[in-house]
Amino acid sequence: MSTTTAKAATIESSKDMPAIKISRDFSATPAQLVKAHTDPDVVLQWLGPDGCTSTMDYWDPRTGGSWRYVHQIEGEDYAFHGCFHTVEEDRLVQTFTYEGFPDSVALETMTFEDLGDGRSRLHTQSLFDSYEARDGMLASGMDIGVNEGYAKLDGLLSAGTV
Amino acid sequence: MSTTTAKAATIESSKDMPAIKISRDFSATPAQLVKAHTDPDVVLQWLGPDGCTSTMDYWDPRTGGSWRYVHQIEGEDYAFHGCFHTVEEDRLVQTFTYEGFPDSVALETMTFEDLGDGRSRLHTQSLFDSYEARDGMLASGMDIGVNEGYAKLDGLLSAGTV
Repeated sequence: MSTTTAKAATIESSKDMPAIKISRDFSATPAQLVKAHTDPDVVLQWLGPDGCTSTMDYWDPRTGGSWRYVHQIEGEDYAFHGCFHTVEEDRLVQTFTYEGFPDSVALETMTFEDLGDGRSRLHTQSLFDSYEARDGMLASGMDIGVNEGYAKLDGLLSAGTV
Repeated sequence: MSTTTAKAATIESSKDMPAIKISRDFSATPAQLVKAHTDPDVVLQWLGPDGCTSTMDYWDPRTGGSWRYVHQIEGEDYAFHGCFHTVEEDRLVQTFTYEGFPDSVALETMTFEDLGDGRSRLHTQSLFDSYEARDGMLASGMDIGVNEGYAKLDGLLSAGTV
């Protein structure tokens, strides 16, 4: 994992809309990154912070499908659900609710930019339905989970698992 | 229709986020409004501007379901699709794409406020993923379709159809 921990994601709070924008480079093709975000066996191996184990309640990664998973972290359950608005080769759009705040919904758009030479840049926009919800997510320590999850994904990619 | 055409919806552009907020009172209970927005046989009778005929490609109004319909207006087809993030008794959350602009996605939240005496106020927030997309929707004449559609729904409610 020594090559992966140095690569922190860029996590920015938008000034003019209640969004969080994340970008992160990977040693992977766009097709590998789509697989990493849609194949449930792969998703379960990297999503979430270190020490988290995850189970999927349902996961139907197609345009019009839906999903729900539960992270177990230090004996506590954290559940999330949403639906897949778009599942395409270079773009995923999905809704996202953390069930601890069941009235808040985010719209997540992920695009996979081909940098050539087997590298890609993942761009994520998480658009929240209020500034309060966006700022609550930023204050939750989500950056730790994002970076630890991506570092695990780096490990899967370098091991040839994806 | 004489009692309905006077009731224009309030349509506001948010200043600090790329959203359109609509509110409109109806002589209906929240349960009737939920039915008007989920029962496909009812939806097809009022959604869209005057002179529009509509067909549903698929329509699965449950949390995690998805939908697609086509308006035919003056011989032209206008198709829309999305998924249902939340379908509850007083709240619907869904994604929305007009296929003429396939890369733009809006997150629509509808809440049904009970005003008592068989009346309700519908609150809709349509949150777009950019200001350009929001302003394009406002410039499209969507207010005409919204108001003409709601006037048709008023007619269905007063006729006892819903």
